[in-house]
Amino acid sequence: VSAPVIDGSGRIVGMITVDDVVDVIEEEAEEDIMHMAGVAESDFNESVLKTSYWRIRWLIVTLVNTLLAAFVISQFEVSIQKITALSFLMTINAAMGGNSGMQVVTVVVRGLATRSIRDGDTWRAVSKEVMVGLMTSGFFSLILGVIAAFWIQDIYIGVVLAVALIFNMLWAAFAGTLFPIIIDRLGLDPAISAGPILTTTTDVLGYATFLGLATTFLL
Amino acid sequence: VSAPVIDGSGRIVGMITVDDVVDVIEEEAEEDIMHMAGVAESDFNESVLKTSYWRIRWLIVTLVNTLLAAFVISQFEVSIQKITALSFLMTINAAMGGNSGMQVVTVVVRGLATRSIRDGDTWRAVSKEVMVGLMTSGFFSLILGVIAAFWIQDIYIGVVLAVALIFNMLWAAFAGTLFPIIIDRLGLDPAISAGPILTTTTDVLGYATFLGLATTFLL
Repeated sequence: VSAPVIDGSGRIVGMITVDDVVDVIEEEAEEDIMHMAGVAESDFNESVLKTSYWRIRWLIVTLVNTLLAAFVISQFEVSIQKITALSFLMTINAAMGGNSGMQVVTVVVRGLATRSIRDGDTWRAVSKEVMVGLMTSGFFSLILGVIAAFWIQDIYIGVVLAVALIFNMLWAAFAGTLFPIIIDRLGLDPAISAGPILTTTTDVLGYATFLGLATTFLL
Repeated sequence: VSAPVIDGSGRIVGMITVDDVVDVIEEEAEEDIMHMAGVAESDFNESVLKTSYWRIRWLIVTLVNTLLAAFVISQFEVSIQKITALSFLMTINAAMGGNSGMQVVTVVVRGLATRSIRDGDTWRAVSKEVMVGLMTSGFFSLILGVIAAFWIQDIYIGVVLAVALIFNMLWAAFAGTLFPIIIDRLGLDPAISAGPILTTTTDVLGYATFLGLATTFLL
């Protein structure tokens, strides 16, 4: 099963087999998956040095993100000294926002690649994801708000966590849809950049919102 | 371009076109990518309610993980009260371990799917990833150890962060290779489960190692 390749005068100069087509599709699919983790090449058979270099290049995004997040938390040292519980509750908010955001980014990046999200669909996609964000954040803020209130024996700390969680997961839904679409419009590859960029904002905003709300309403 | 489908007596009863083959490959690739984020179905055109249900089902893994991690941190309340800097440095260690682990899982899951990692390759894969883990963790522990030492004005806190980082990233390399292979052997899908399982261990071990080392050597 093959297709002939002809030159300008109609003579056959080669052919493309089904295998060639399948190879290209599989390569493209592999690339998409590798890009989601910022791993640019399939490197099982590459040298340790080259593999390390590729991995480090993309982990630098995490390095910058994590330093930024640490800086934001450090601004609330006094609050954490007064209510130590803030130091472990703040990680819940950041993790839930980051993970729900990765789900959104995955669906949107794939939707753009398969053209199931087209040019006119931006606001339909955003409004749908924000609706889903409302449902999911409502579910988890109820559970985690109650757990935190009982754990710390303080109903207000439960309310602060619940409100911060809704804010962070709604941001993840909104930005997780919009970031990949904007990056795609700019002609860049959303698969490799949208995840790290979104995680930076959910981490930084997650810590800032939760610790900010706690500082304002609990101290 | 098509292949005939014949019955037992050699009569043509239908045909498979290249389009059919391409469709199957694209579906498989899409499934792999969706699985990496625990998003089981391509849901852009699904209802808000159904999409929310699918997302919530997998975010419950994050919920359990994040509560476990918060519990581990809460065991070090006294240490954090004494050295508030621990509350923001601990997030650096967990994030670096989690992200380097996701890179390893992605490469291994893909290697298993494309059969480039075969039955006899387990220890070759583990030892290679551990070598890469040594290189990458050495690089980042040097940078982050120096940054932490200057930031907190305490060289020992820099050493503790550097050691914890090497430990956590080596664990991510080791378990990030072994977990998907074991899950695959058990006949389960590593794409959907390996990531969340690994992140739980890098979070919990990351907080426990860093805060444990800091409590032992700094207080």
